[in-house]
Amino acid sequence: PGTKLPKVGTTIFTVMSQLAAEHGAVNLGQGFPDFDVPPRLVDALDRAMRAGHNQYAPMTGVAALREAIADKTAALYGHRPDPDAEVTVTSGATEAIFNAIHAVVRAGDEVVVLDPAYDCYEPAIDLAGARAVHVPLDPVTFASDWARVRAAIGPKTRMLIVNTPHNPSGAMLSANDMAELAAIVQDTGVWLISDEVYEHIVFDGARHESALRYPALRERAFVVSSFGKTYHCTGWKVGYCIAPPGLSLEFRKVHQYNVFCTFAPAQHAFAEMLREEPEHYLGLGDFYQSKRDAFREQLLGTKLRPLPVPGGYFQLVDYSAVSDLVDTEFCRWLTIEHGVASIPLSPFYESPPPGQRLARLCFAKAQPTLDAAIERLTGL
Amino acid sequence: PGTKLPKVGTTIFTVMSQLAAEHGAVNLGQGFPDFDVPPRLVDALDRAMRAGHNQYAPMTGVAALREAIADKTAALYGHRPDPDAEVTVTSGATEAIFNAIHAVVRAGDEVVVLDPAYDCYEPAIDLAGARAVHVPLDPVTFASDWARVRAAIGPKTRMLIVNTPHNPSGAMLSANDMAELAAIVQDTGVWLISDEVYEHIVFDGARHESALRYPALRERAFVVSSFGKTYHCTGWKVGYCIAPPGLSLEFRKVHQYNVFCTFAPAQHAFAEMLREEPEHYLGLGDFYQSKRDAFREQLLGTKLRPLPVPGGYFQLVDYSAVSDLVDTEFCRWLTIEHGVASIPLSPFYESPPPGQRLARLCFAKAQPTLDAAIERLTGL
Ligand SMILES: CSCCC(=O)C(=O)O
Ligand SMILES: CSCCC(=O)C(=O)O
Repeated sequence: PGTKLPKVGTTIFTVMSQLAAEHGAVNLGQGFPDFDVPPRLVDALDRAMRAGHNQYAPMTGVAALREAIADKTAALYGHRPDPDAEVTVTSGATEAIFNAIHAVVRAGDEVVVLDPAYDCYEPAIDLAGARAVHVPLDPVTFASDWARVRAAIGPKTRMLIVNTPHNPSGAMLSANDMAELAAIVQDTGVWLISDEVYEHIVFDGARHESALRYPALRERAFVVSSFGKTYHCTGWKVGYCIAPPGLSLEFRKVHQYNVFCTFAPAQHAFAEMLREEPEHYLGLGDFYQSKRDAFREQLLGTKLRPLPVPGGYFQLVDYSAVSDLVDTEFCRWLTIEHGVASIPLSPFYESPPPGQRLARLCFAKAQPTLDAAIERLTGL
Repeated sequence: PGTKLPKVGTTIFTVMSQLAAEHGAVNLGQGFPDFDVPPRLVDALDRAMRAGHNQYAPMTGVAALREAIADKTAALYGHRPDPDAEVTVTSGATEAIFNAIHAVVRAGDEVVVLDPAYDCYEPAIDLAGARAVHVPLDPVTFASDWARVRAAIGPKTRMLIVNTPHNPSGAMLSANDMAELAAIVQDTGVWLISDEVYEHIVFDGARHESALRYPALRERAFVVSSFGKTYHCTGWKVGYCIAPPGLSLEFRKVHQYNVFCTFAPAQHAFAEMLREEPEHYLGLGDFYQSKRDAFREQLLGTKLRPLPVPGGYFQLVDYSAVSDLVDTEFCRWLTIEHGVASIPLSPFYESPPPGQRLARLCFAKAQPTLDAAIERLTGL
């Protein structure tokens, strides 16, 4: 039929997972935990099925879950969204991002994304008939250059997408960043997607700067989060979007005719987890911080140089002391020759910074997995 | 933000379910079973979770499920699709339809739909920047008028959507219809969506005419089905699309960046059900035929006149002996005053046939639910 999405191939995450499987490599590529989900969550889902919650959930999400999300948001970010008008449960954060883009972006529009950017933004923008405008983050610190962001916004710009903690770098927006961002959003009138799927995975006592904390941001934002990241179940595909009533209305028009609603038993289970076991998400930063610290310590015994990781579950490493191979070539070589799969950074860029020698390792893994990887990486 | 979808409001299914809840009505509106899912399915899902199948499924679907779908298709329709290149598991049939439209329909295109048509087609067409062209089915028999379909196809027509067994009427395409359809598809080169979500719910020994039986059709078709309808779990949101490799490739580009993949544990559970308990789907026609027959018998004791139901789980009734109210007015009145929720037909039409006095009742209900409805309907 010809193609509407000429730039889209198989996502790098699938490519690297397949390569890992073919070569028996330790898979630190695609971002997913290799340890168990909380037992209570499995039990709660099981109970929900056996209690008969197996027919269509409400299109917007199970009420108890939307309430629990609103309560959690209030407790953490000092603002309680209206669960009926502002919270929508989705089939993962990816669906939420897709819907948000399709809700407001029209053919001929532009959407500003900050590179490196998660790979689902641009295809959704393209499918909406719009164009992604790429503004680079700092190639070393991954800080945002707000002057460049502002300069990239023109009359056609409908939307801006930010991501904190950031995939792949782990960089986090600061309170100062949020003030700059708020000024841009107010001055230009663009809509915002704030991709906050790693909101609970923040380290060293830092505070997650949710767009929901800031009135000037939340009134123009789709704030997206993911239960997969928070509850170690990336394959369950439940996420949500918080947006003001007018934006939620448009968002839901897309959601209603895209997937209509999301796997019902899991919604009941997540409602129970949020309500009954807040320790889980409150302790998630510490849980991952020990993994990060142990893994970084181990990496110091290799020739890979770990970059700082303020949040999220990815460790960027500079491999320039190991190889001159570029990016995807290096990651393929590391998988095939040394049995460790990683993710190259070029798929996150329109044009990767020349000379960049970085690869992304996922440390959301049980210690034996990380040990096995380190053993192989020590041989480099 | 203004609206991209000015015609979209809350779907009639949600509206009527809410009205039913408010008024304590027996809900024969929105199509979902009120009886349990097969116990083995719940057990299988539970086992899949506890076996650790909780991370991302492959984007195209769990291999065992795609294999099982291919085998079932071969056994039933005499053609085995390639599970790797032609079968994609989706987050319900709605997502599959949305993806298929977005995979090939471009801005300015036209898509022919046959009215009455399921309500998710047109918003997806609109969102793709295209236009739905409505061709009416026969207002009494719901037969397709292929000459009118052919006449509606012009240079801008990219796609045609058919649905058998048909929602809301239960009408089924015959082998003769399929020959006409094949000729149209071949002559005009349009792509086809064949919405076959009720494929296993067919009555009176009739044969379901899947597009997959016919080479001329399947080579241009996205054939869509739904586990929710087959396994009494509409809230699990798992469906699939079978399409030739080129179409599947484009379909998957949308799927990959729309939801990426579908709730993994359920995919393992459905694979087991298809493989180990084919009696379930093979017996589904008989299961629903007894419900249909009992319900029709009961309806004969009311002033509602049941229309023939060849397939699916909806019973259309002519209410002209009961009320002069039109369509939605009648259905609201029946819910509020008589405690039985149904679905009006106007939301399935661009322009409903004047004077039509039909409502849709869902008989995918336990007998006590149907009894309660009949008791109330007998008072009309
Ligand atoms: C949808 S597969 C990619 C998972 C992920 O978020 C990542 O690895 O960055
Ligand atoms: C997605 S709610 C509608 C369910 C259904 O298929 C119907 O009632 O026709």
